Amino acid sequence: MSNTGLSIGEYLIKRLREYGLQDLFGIPGDYVLSLYGMLEKSPINVVGCTREDCAGFAADAYARIKGLGALCVTYCVGGLSVCNSIAGAYAEKSPVVLITGSPGLNERVNNPLLHHMVRDFRTQIEVFEKLCVAVAELSDPMRAFAEIDRVLDAAVRFKRPVYLDIPRDMVDVRRPIAHVYYDPGVPSNPSALKEATNETIALLEAAQRPLILAGIEVHRFQLQDELLELAEQTKVPIAATLLAKSVIRETHPLFIGVYEGAMGTKEVTAYVEESDFVLLLGTFMTDINLGIFTANLDMGNCVCATSEELRVHHHHYHGVQLQDFLSELKRRQPRATQREVPACLKPKPEKFVLDADAQLTITRMIQRLNEQIDDATIVIADIGDSLFAGTELITHERTDFLSPAYYTSMGFSVPAALGASVACPNDRVLVLCGDGAFQMTGMELSTIVRHGYSPVVIVLDNHGYGTERLLHAGEWKFNEIHPWKYELLCEVLGGGTGYEVRTEGEFDAALTAAWKSDSLSLIHVHLPEGDCSETLKRLGKRLGERV
Amino acid sequence: MSNTGLSIGEYLIKRLREYGLQDLFGIPGDYVLSLYGMLEKSPINVVGCTREDCAGFAADAYARIKGLGALCVTYCVGGLSVCNSIAGAYAEKSPVVLITGSPGLNERVNNPLLHHMVRDFRTQIEVFEKLCVAVAELSDPMRAFAEIDRVLDAAVRFKRPVYLDIPRDMVDVRRPIAHVYYDPGVPSNPSALKEATNETIALLEAAQRPLILAGIEVHRFQLQDELLELAEQTKVPIAATLLAKSVIRETHPLFIGVYEGAMGTKEVTAYVEESDFVLLLGTFMTDINLGIFTANLDMGNCVCATSEELRVHHHHYHGVQLQDFLSELKRRQPRATQREVPACLKPKPEKFVLDADAQLTITRMIQRLNEQIDDATIVIADIGDSLFAGTELITHERTDFLSPAYYTSMGFSVPAALGASVACPNDRVLVLCGDGAFQMTGMELSTIVRHGYSPVVIVLDNHGYGTERLLHAGEWKFNEIHPWKYELLCEVLGGGTGYEVRTEGEFDAALTAAWKSDSLSLIHVHLPEGDCSETLKRLGKRLGERV
Repeated sequence: MSNTGLSIGEYLIKRLREYGLQDLFGIPGDYVLSLYGMLEKSPINVVGCTREDCAGFAADAYARIKGLGALCVTYCVGGLSVCNSIAGAYAEKSPVVLITGSPGLNERVNNPLLHHMVRDFRTQIEVFEKLCVAVAELSDPMRAFAEIDRVLDAAVRFKRPVYLDIPRDMVDVRRPIAHVYYDPGVPSNPSALKEATNETIALLEAAQRPLILAGIEVHRFQLQDELLELAEQTKVPIAATLLAKSVIRETHPLFIGVYEGAMGTKEVTAYVEESDFVLLLGTFMTDINLGIFTANLDMGNCVCATSEELRVHHHHYHGVQLQDFLSELKRRQPRATQREVPACLKPKPEKFVLDADAQLTITRMIQRLNEQIDDATIVIADIGDSLFAGTELITHERTDFLSPAYYTSMGFSVPAALGASVACPNDRVLVLCGDGAFQMTGMELSTIVRHGYSPVVIVLDNHGYGTERLLHAGEWKFNEIHPWKYELLCEVLGGGTGYEVRTEGEFDAALTAAWKSDSLSLIHVHLPEGDCSETLKRLGKRLGERV
Repeated sequence: MSNTGLSIGEYLIKRLREYGLQDLFGIPGDYVLSLYGMLEKSPINVVGCTREDCAGFAADAYARIKGLGALCVTYCVGGLSVCNSIAGAYAEKSPVVLITGSPGLNERVNNPLLHHMVRDFRTQIEVFEKLCVAVAELSDPMRAFAEIDRVLDAAVRFKRPVYLDIPRDMVDVRRPIAHVYYDPGVPSNPSALKEATNETIALLEAAQRPLILAGIEVHRFQLQDELLELAEQTKVPIAATLLAKSVIRETHPLFIGVYEGAMGTKEVTAYVEESDFVLLLGTFMTDINLGIFTANLDMGNCVCATSEELRVHHHHYHGVQLQDFLSELKRRQPRATQREVPACLKPKPEKFVLDADAQLTITRMIQRLNEQIDDATIVIADIGDSLFAGTELITHERTDFLSPAYYTSMGFSVPAALGASVACPNDRVLVLCGDGAFQMTGMELSTIVRHGYSPVVIVLDNHGYGTERLLHAGEWKFNEIHPWKYELLCEVLGGGTGYEVRTEGEFDAALTAAWKSDSLSLIHVHLPEGDCSETLKRLGKRLGERV
């Protein structure tokens, strides 16, 4: 793989393609126009967005589905507009490559005040050093090629965002001598791996009530198949955390539900907490994942394996990779006590009987949606009750459920629907989005209409920041927002169909039509005052004690 | 001014009020709800926005008009969403106070993974250390009060953004002993001040063709009146930089135009560059200000005074404040050679003769607008030809022209119109905004409709990033954007009137109606393909040589 002939920009594009990247999001700007020109002529499809932060969310969702995402923006005015999107990708381990242009090295002599500059030429990279797992400025043609390798390897290895800054006069620069990509690899320590596996298997085999608690890294490191094989070999039941919802299909016989401590249903919580052995695989111990720390797991009964640590009870193994640990467990074919999964834990959507004139509530909406979603549906939930009610959706085989359930940044869902549509153009994307979140980024529907994607976007209108009303007692004006006629946006954007619904009958009709449509459907749902899901009520009670 | 009885949150509100702050922008979130509750009960008017970055732009515009602006957002998902707005305020010297909530200190024990967290609890403050002139985390009740003083003093002194982070369990904490605010003051070195003034006056009095080139700091430090008095005393003509356009009224007899090097009109450029003495007051030497460095000023003929330096020819004075220098110059009543201002430099808007059926061009639109704007108009120009054509508007007495002409962040104008409307509810705000910029932040019109403000917002539709087309030759798809029916947004937002115009007659009718209206007017102007202002053509030529 000699690359003598390639310029820095060409090499970057080549390496991205080698990682399977087919699409990239962003907005051009003068410091990045040469690279944009090169991208437009390359096999990579460049999806222009309305705002840079939306491009960041779209790239994040794309990365969650495809294993790597990327965006390309201009210097500072573009880059600093994606800090929040990149921060979310960092927090929730999504491998996003942020590429920015910057002033040419030949323009920087004597430190002039160039437009888009903040404090000095390094301000932008210094900010992203705080928000990325690896950063590089490609300013040295001898080092740039190896730096591209290092930074992209870090994105893929750590499943975190990375940052590459190309001064605009470096895009076409070639390297005088050949560069060869060398895959660094990260082998596990074989002795530590063996001892940890032995110990884990002994604990698993001795347990009477074993359980696997699957976390989001199982998805990020694409270990779903291996996890499922291990579970099916041993017949150990599996729960998932909220962030990892849909990491295995929820109709699988071994799946027992989403574990959220006191926030979840009491049957799931009891089943998990009665376990005498819990194997946590790729699980982040975050507040919302743990039901605001109401989860009651005795670490003395747990083995926790993530990409960052491997812990058995209260001791730690270093240098063991999550993938290797899971493979080795599976290869050893442990035997486990077969633990019954009670019928009350099997998801069985109630038959939805339409009460056409009844005012639609969020709980009834979820029941209706459970009848609609199928194997080819990707559900994207925004923050607030979109997420909490969304947990009550039963995802199917191969179905994805995407949500920023840890970082909880409002406005993720519509741009993420763009990312998911680009990644999986043949799937149906279903978006659940609160009105506050929609007002932040919902206009990214523009790009969805432009490219003819056909998501079903449900705007849950409760006139403001509904979750906050539960968190801070009192009638506060600051939780109110301006009402929009969301359904009219299709006319503004020149595509798709808008619906305004208040009753079950109206919702049923809109959803049925939407599912048949091959363009955007935007359903504006007026919720009754104070309506919210049971999960949100339980969360509100817990958070409200702290705010 | 003893403050024993006040809590940290109350003291912050009191100090903001003492600086004259009446309004504040933002979006609530759970880590900042207690402070929001306190703000809502305070005399400060809290303006909720649709997005945090819009709140940042609104606070920036408010700060430019009123001398201090503020916004209040939640931890990370809020804070990291305003990086770009705060960076723009830093680059262009706008004193914006960014207040964020954060997790309570009592929640941070053992470093749990709380929602909205990125890397660790300090990530957000470390980012803003790069983007602000002063930052503080108010985590120590003994130090918090003095920290508030220090940080607010820095905002006002340096005209740069600052950052205050209040952990949510510190809002109500009181100080056990009294705290007294002490104004640090920043006196000039009297000997340096005297020597610099003597030298400057000698140069001024010896010059045959003296000129004052006024920069944006004259506005930021509210030195307009002093500058005008100095000019009127001495009868020295004044030019302004692009960023400082409208720093004095453009109809003033001494005003000779906006100086932009090769980008500006050749008459103004020649007059400035023929000067044998130029007093640059508060002028940033930025690329766009200097016509992409085509400005041809001999520093051997210049005195440059800003808040950061005082330079006479090629030597520097330290410790002289801009305000003191200007006051001292004025007090000394220097005599200058009276330099004639040729008639070709006096702005004299041509009488606009309507050609009702002609397709509207940007140049003709500006001519029509020059007839409309009056003493109570605030013009806000976004980036691209909104800015460049906007320079051809002749602002009146007390008229403001606001634009991010150095940092050039697209999407500033609509949120800035909110900020300006809140600051000056009795003025007419006129917004010039490209379609690309409007798609970024235009939905902030929501807040404008909600509060009944009545700006006239002109969307210049050229189907994409028009400036970039001039910068990078070729037909590139990435410069195209999706067309919106902008005029229909008034129906979505439930307020205001939308207009779609193509001809001079349609524009004339829309503008006339808009000026009579007491609610939002949104005028969607379809521009002929390839149409742009003369200024942009000149700029494109210069920038295109570099991209």
